Amino acid sequence: MIPLKTGERIDDLQRSALGIIQNPAHFCFGTDAVLLSGFVRAAAKERVADLCTGNGIVPLLLSVKTRAKEIVAVEIQTEIADMAERSVAMNGLSERVRILCGDLREGIAGVSGSFDVVSCNPPYMALGRGEHSQASSRAIARQELCCTLEEVVKETARLLKNGGRAYFVYRPNRLDELFAACARRGLMPKRMKFAHPFPDREANLVLLEAVKGGGHFLRVEAPIIVFRAPGVYTDEIREIYGY
Amino acid sequence: MIPLKTGERIDDLQRSALGIIQNPAHFCFGTDAVLLSGFVRAAAKERVADLCTGNGIVPLLLSVKTRAKEIVAVEIQTEIADMAERSVAMNGLSERVRILCGDLREGIAGVSGSFDVVSCNPPYMALGRGEHSQASSRAIARQELCCTLEEVVKETARLLKNGGRAYFVYRPNRLDELFAACARRGLMPKRMKFAHPFPDREANLVLLEAVKGGGHFLRVEAPIIVFRAPGVYTDEIREIYGY
Repeated sequence: MIPLKTGERIDDLQRSALGIIQNPAHFCFGTDAVLLSGFVRAAAKERVADLCTGNGIVPLLLSVKTRAKEIVAVEIQTEIADMAERSVAMNGLSERVRILCGDLREGIAGVSGSFDVVSCNPPYMALGRGEHSQASSRAIARQELCCTLEEVVKETARLLKNGGRAYFVYRPNRLDELFAACARRGLMPKRMKFAHPFPDREANLVLLEAVKGGGHFLRVEAPIIVFRAPGVYTDEIREIYGY
Repeated sequence: MIPLKTGERIDDLQRSALGIIQNPAHFCFGTDAVLLSGFVRAAAKERVADLCTGNGIVPLLLSVKTRAKEIVAVEIQTEIADMAERSVAMNGLSERVRILCGDLREGIAGVSGSFDVVSCNPPYMALGRGEHSQASSRAIARQELCCTLEEVVKETARLLKNGGRAYFVYRPNRLDELFAACARRGLMPKRMKFAHPFPDREANLVLLEAVKGGGHFLRVEAPIIVFRAPGVYTDEIREIYGY
């Protein structure tokens, strides 16, 4: 029996009987993490690192969506990493999924070039000035308080083998910055997919696969449309969510 | 009466009784140019330059889709520029649309900072080696024989005022290169739209608006879907084409 702390609850991930511990006061996963887990490709013998893992939603889903032999997930916030750790134990995944609590900027995930795949759902919001005082756990997940896009991409590139694949979910508003950061670190965009809430609306998420040391050739896949009517998911989203 | 040369024909542009001279042996416009003309925004007092204009499809369509007061269009190939020139005359547009035959790399369109808008449908294919011998007019329109992406973006940035808008149609496969070239020349991506032949297929064209000296904030608009069934255009495409 996994002990729950005050304010925590267990949510059903609707897939392979997976559950996840969440605390609405601190951190709950969003559509972005679920879409990222559906976009990542990892083969049976591959080692995966997930950075900015939060409560472990991406490694939990990857454990059932891929056959990756090992998933190392890094979260900087102690309380959130602790939730992730307990979720992993609760699902009996401790042998395949390892949660590390620490700072990705210090290379906690592992040695250079040791991963086939790195996934990351980084904080989306660039920092203005003087925002450091409001460093709640939500703020750390959303704003670049503990790591910038540049630092995330740098560490991703460091962890990957040559030919290894990086997967990001990000805001389209900053896609030019994501491309520039990838270019600086030798990660070449190979596959991209936008998510639009409705067919006639702007994209609010972008998924990007980039290959370390690859050549130029990007495929922009068919867009993901999230809702077919207000509050009603499309079949594609139901499939990704596992309904 | 505008004289037609051997192999030439006049095609109806289905909009404001516009016609265009084409020669299937040399150059006929494609969906990309039509989509570009639907994506460009130009106000009544603005000056527009169109680079790599081919037979003038983009300036012809912009003359009816916008109220831009002047459109200067550059084509390097003499025969193709001549077709464009005769199409402009045939449509009675010689006062608003000026076709220049020359090399954009030599600054033929005008002085630095003199345009509000620059549009361009550049050659898509990077050159391999030893392809210069097959420099047919089609090859020049499609391959980077007479100008590279870098040269197109450099000249676009030179022609634009600060705050002026660049519009490109390009292949998604090279989007990372387009972003990098824009970043090097101070053109910030602001608005982007992908065209997919069908809703479940990869994008085959991308439209990009970039602002000279702008800040980071990109909007990815709803995708354009070209066909709703094989050979049957969607309403959006019919609207852009003017059916």
